Parts: sequence; C-alpha cells; structure tokens
Amino acid sequence: MSRLYLDWNATAPLRPEAKAAMLAAMEVVGNPSSVHAEGRAARALVERARAQVAAALGADGADVVFTSGATEAAALACAGRGLVCAGVEHDAVAAWCEAGLAVDGQGRVTVPDPPRSALQLANSETGVIQDLPQGLAVSDLTQAFGKIAFAFNWLGCDSGLVSAHKLGGPKGIGALVVRQGVEVLAQLKGGGQEMGRRAGTENLIGIAGFGAAAEAAARDLANGVWEEVAELRNILEMQLSAAENETICVGNGSPRLPNTLCLIAPGWKGETQVMAMDLAGFAISAGSACSSGKVRTSRVLTAMGLDPALAGQAIRVSIGPGTRRDEVLRFGEAWTKAYAKARARAA
Amino acid sequence: MSRLYLDWNATAPLRPEAKAAMLAAMEVVGNPSSVHAEGRAARALVERARAQVAAALGADGADVVFTSGATEAAALACAGRGLVCAGVEHDAVAAWCEAGLAVDGQGRVTVPDPPRSALQLANSETGVIQDLPQGLAVSDLTQAFGKIAFAFNWLGCDSGLVSAHKLGGPKGIGALVVRQGVEVLAQLKGGGQEMGRRAGTENLIGIAGFGAAAEAAARDLANGVWEEVAELRNILEMQLSAAENETICVGNGSPRLPNTLCLIAPGWKGETQVMAMDLAGFAISAGSACSSGKVRTSRVLTAMGLDPALAGQAIRVSIGPGTRRDEVLRFGEAWTKAYAKARARAA
Repeated sequence: MSRLYLDWNATAPLRPEAKAAMLAAMEVVGNPSSVHAEGRAARALVERARAQVAAALGADGADVVFTSGATEAAALACAGRGLVCAGVEHDAVAAWCEAGLAVDGQGRVTVPDPPRSALQLANSETGVIQDLPQGLAVSDLTQAFGKIAFAFNWLGCDSGLVSAHKLGGPKGIGALVVRQGVEVLAQLKGGGQEMGRRAGTENLIGIAGFGAAAEAAARDLANGVWEEVAELRNILEMQLSAAENETICVGNGSPRLPNTLCLIAPGWKGETQVMAMDLAGFAISAGSACSSGKVRTSRVLTAMGLDPALAGQAIRVSIGPGTRRDEVLRFGEAWTKAYAKARARAA
Repeated sequence: MSRLYLDWNATAPLRPEAKAAMLAAMEVVGNPSSVHAEGRAARALVERARAQVAAALGADGADVVFTSGATEAAALACAGRGLVCAGVEHDAVAAWCEAGLAVDGQGRVTVPDPPRSALQLANSETGVIQDLPQGLAVSDLTQAFGKIAFAFNWLGCDSGLVSAHKLGGPKGIGALVVRQGVEVLAQLKGGGQEMGRRAGTENLIGIAGFGAAAEAAARDLANGVWEEVAELRNILEMQLSAAENETICVGNGSPRLPNTLCLIAPGWKGETQVMAMDLAGFAISAGSACSSGKVRTSRVLTAMGLDPALAGQAIRVSIGPGTRRDEVLRFGEAWTKAYAKARARAA
C-alpha cells in the first residue's frame, strides 16, 4: 500500500499551479535588476507574484517584501525591537522576543500591550487560532495563510510573516507583509532589491511558484475546500479519541485550523508513535518539524500548562485538501491498533 | 532575428542538469527536518547537493552552509567583524566592511592584513582575478566559481561566498563555505538547520538545482569549455577595440575571467550603449546588475582610478559556454556601427 502523508503543517505538497509557474520561470534568463528586455521580463514575473501574494493575503496597498522564508521574515520583523511573545510562538519568532505573554489551557494568549507584542494567528502544533488585538506589532500568519479566511488589511497588525511551502508553494521562499508607512530595517544589505528592504538577487523561480500557489490557495479556500478537510479531521478526532478514554485532544475547546489534530495518547511516547506510524506507512509528527530533526518535548504544549510527561506523548496529524476519507480511516485504524498493542506491552 | 544574451555575469541561463534536478525535487514532499521517511528523503537531497557543491568547490572537509544567495552569505561571513576591503568588492561585501584596501589601475588589490580582510577572487565587472593572500578572512568566489579552476581548500582563506545562479543554477540560493573550525554566528535563528548556523526550512528545490549545476559546471570546466569562451572573448575584444583608437579594455593587463569584457567607449555613455544594444536585440550591462535597476557610475572602475566620466562610458559584455562565434561577431558588428553613429551625432 502506498504511503500516506499526514504532515501538511510541516510542509504541504507542491501545487500543480506552482509547479507550472516555476517551469515557466525557468525559461526566463534575466536578472530582475538588469535593465535590458531579459531583466525586465524577470522583473515582471516578480511583480506579478507580488500582486498574487498581496491579493491572496487581502493586503492590497500593503507592501510584500519577499524573503527566503518565514524565518527570515521573522528576523526582519522582530530583531532588535524588544517585543514580547508567548511560549506558543514558533522558534523563529521566539528567538527575537521576550517570552512574557500568558497562555491558557486552550492555547489562547492574552496581549496587554499589542504594539510591543508578536502573536501568531494560528499555531502549527495545535491549530489553535488567536483573536488578534488591534495594533499588534507582528503576527506569524504562516499556518493560517491559505487554510482560513482572513484579510491582512483587517487584522489590524503592522506586519505579518508568511511562507510559501505551507500552502503548496516551494520551500525557501516567504514574505514579510507590512502596512504602508511601517519601517523595515534591511538586514541583508548590498543591493537595492525589494525597495532597499532586502538585498540579494531575487529567488525568481521560487517567487513565481509562491505567487501561483497563493492564488490557487485563495481560490480553494473561497470554494470551501477546507470545510471538507475539517469534516475529515473531526472524523479522525473522534476515531482516535474513541481508542481510550484518556486521550486528550489539545486545544479543541478553541477555534482551530480545519486540518490540525494534536492528540495525547497517555502511556505512548510521541516519538515512538511517529516511528511506529512511519514504519506502517504514515507520515505524522510529534511537535514542530522545523527545528532539528530531533524530537523534543513540545514547548507549545508545556506553555499551555500541560505536564511535560503528557506533552511528550503528543502527536500532530495534519491533513490537507488532497487527503481522502478512506485514507483518514485507514490511519485511524492503524493507529488505534498500534496504541492498543503499546498499552498491552506496557501493562 | 532572435535576441542574444551577453550578460552571463548578471545571471547565467539555467543548466538542463539543474532543471532536471529541480523537477525531481518537486516530487519530494517532505520537510528535511521531519523524521519520517518523507522527511529523510528530503534531507538526503539536501546532503547530496551539499556534497556536490563541496566537490565542485574543492572544499572536501570544509563546511558548506546553504544560504539564500551570496548576499546572505556575505552578511553571515562579514557582519560585525570589522573587516576591511577594497572599492572593487561587490556591494554585498562592501556593506559590511571598511573600504581601506588599495587598488591599482589594473584592478589588483594589496592586502596588508589578510586575517582582517575580504578580497574577491574575481571581479564581476572587469573579470580581474586576484592573487589571494594566505590567511584571508573572506573571499567572494561568486564570479570565479565554475569559470576558473581553483580549490577552496588551497586558497588559504577562512570562508568563501558562492551563488548558484552565476554558474547555471537557480537564483535565490547560495552558500557560505567555511574552513572547519571557523566559527559562524547564525543571523537567522529559530531552527537547528545547517548545524545551527542558518535557521529556516531549506530551499529544497533550489538546493537540488545548485548541486546539479555545480557538478555540471565543474565537469565543463575540466573539459576546457571556458578556453573556447576565452577565445571568443578575445575575438570580441579585438573587434570592439578596433572600432576607435581610444577605447579602453579595462583590466586586460591582469589575469581575467575568460568570459568578461569591460570596455570604455569614449564619448558614448554606458547607459546609452545598453539601451541602444537592447533595442537592437542584445542584452549587455553597464556595471553590476545587482543593485537597483538604476544604472550608476561604476564604483569598481572609479576605485581603479578611472575618471568618473570615463567610468560612465563603460559596458560589460559577459558571455558563456552557450555563446557562439557568429553571435559574438554579430554583436561586434552591431556595436561598432552604433558607436560610429553615436560619434557622428556627437561630432
């Protein structure tokens, strides 16, 4: 039986629209900074993609600064600004902020001073969605972009981070979106690209793929594709929860991303679950993939007040519009059997 | 008649080997940091490309840290280190260094204190090749990589910057190569990628393309492909120089890259030359493309002691292994005619 990929929050499969745009961009030889026809053709691709990303973000009139990913966008938005954030933020944001914001047991964050704070729109591990306060300095929109409807211009925050590969674009390209008039201090210097906010020859092929993926993602979202995804996630949640009375579905008392399930299976280490499921042909994760290849106890879950031992028994299953009902059921069955075996072994 | 691209130093056409590797990488769904089979497959692609780049650079045993390009690699290598450089360095290096090293009229730089200095191996505008002193802190290898034979391990420098798109890989991917034991302080934080030296999900498709392009470039170089390029460049140099007695071939008293011709045509502004040639179907440049889309008087040429008025009358023609003899002759003829016209108009 073929393998089943259930780790869309780590990275989503490349969309056909992105692939087609990247193939077309491969035929464009110019450097976007060159003034000749070949350079202008490359420049036109970049600007077209910028408009696609802005439109998909609901960020018309705001500035989209292309970066090498959300991690670079986070550095550009947060470094040296003395911002405060919560323990549920991604490492790429937390690295530049003081961890001071309170998180409740359902993963919701309180923000007393928005202009000095960073707050994600949705969490990568639990899917929990935050109510962003007006005037927020920075929001990590990476996991929300393409999965739930929002418009940057209505979020009321100064800047947002996004990444192409979470919505079906290529890895290694992202953007910082900033309200007009908000200052961005370049960290990469030595070229006038991106209006002086980010030097370096543009990742032309990646940018073209990002633009096409963002456009396709926005169209899918408008067409209600993620409502079906939510149904499948809910079926899976019931199936896995039914395995034992003690399982915990983290954050399911909060609004969540439609595709994300964070489940604690007491007595079964998350790391072991991931390996057992991998051998059985299923790709899932324990916590965030983004750090080290090593599995560590989730900082997100302990920030929500979960006991570290329990947090170490969590897995994340994240699906997408390509996931089918029979696939979800197949995983649920395999996982339930494996959990029963693990419990029998432990008993 | 089809257009002729003579701006390879701004960016080279994508090699078929790079395209094939990128297409293959598009089918790999995993995040290289994920521990499951899909993640491990992605990781294997990254590590294979790293070995390809290291081999092409003659850098076995050294560390190759993938970045979003040479500009980011320059920031990683130079920022906050108080290095000194010459006026002929690329802006991406010059942005982080004090400009203190002397340049002679043939573009050659003197380096009194190598461990505190950055020096390029070859210049993008003139093609002038430097003798790197032992113990150099940083060398910008971007233009030399793939065009002339060298081994990083024998250059005697602590670190080198390279970029994929100058040798037929995609734009937006590069690397910092560092001697083992040399410390690199991460600027992008929030993930353990690249041994903690550069956080952020890897540009998988771009990295795969870089690896394949580097391998193909090294093979071409070993096969003597660039010797033919040098012959064509020399033919072009004679043809253009013959147009008027007053033309100056900048740096041709120094060892140069085989593909680069920097020519001053007195009385004809570089900017005007680029536009006239563009209209006639030829892509050339005036100075470096990398900055702003605006044409400015070349900082490189004035650093070599050229009068700013003369420096403003320079063009760069840079060819590659795809360039044919008849194409070079066609350009030479068109340029010579246009120069005669421009002079007649000025007279």
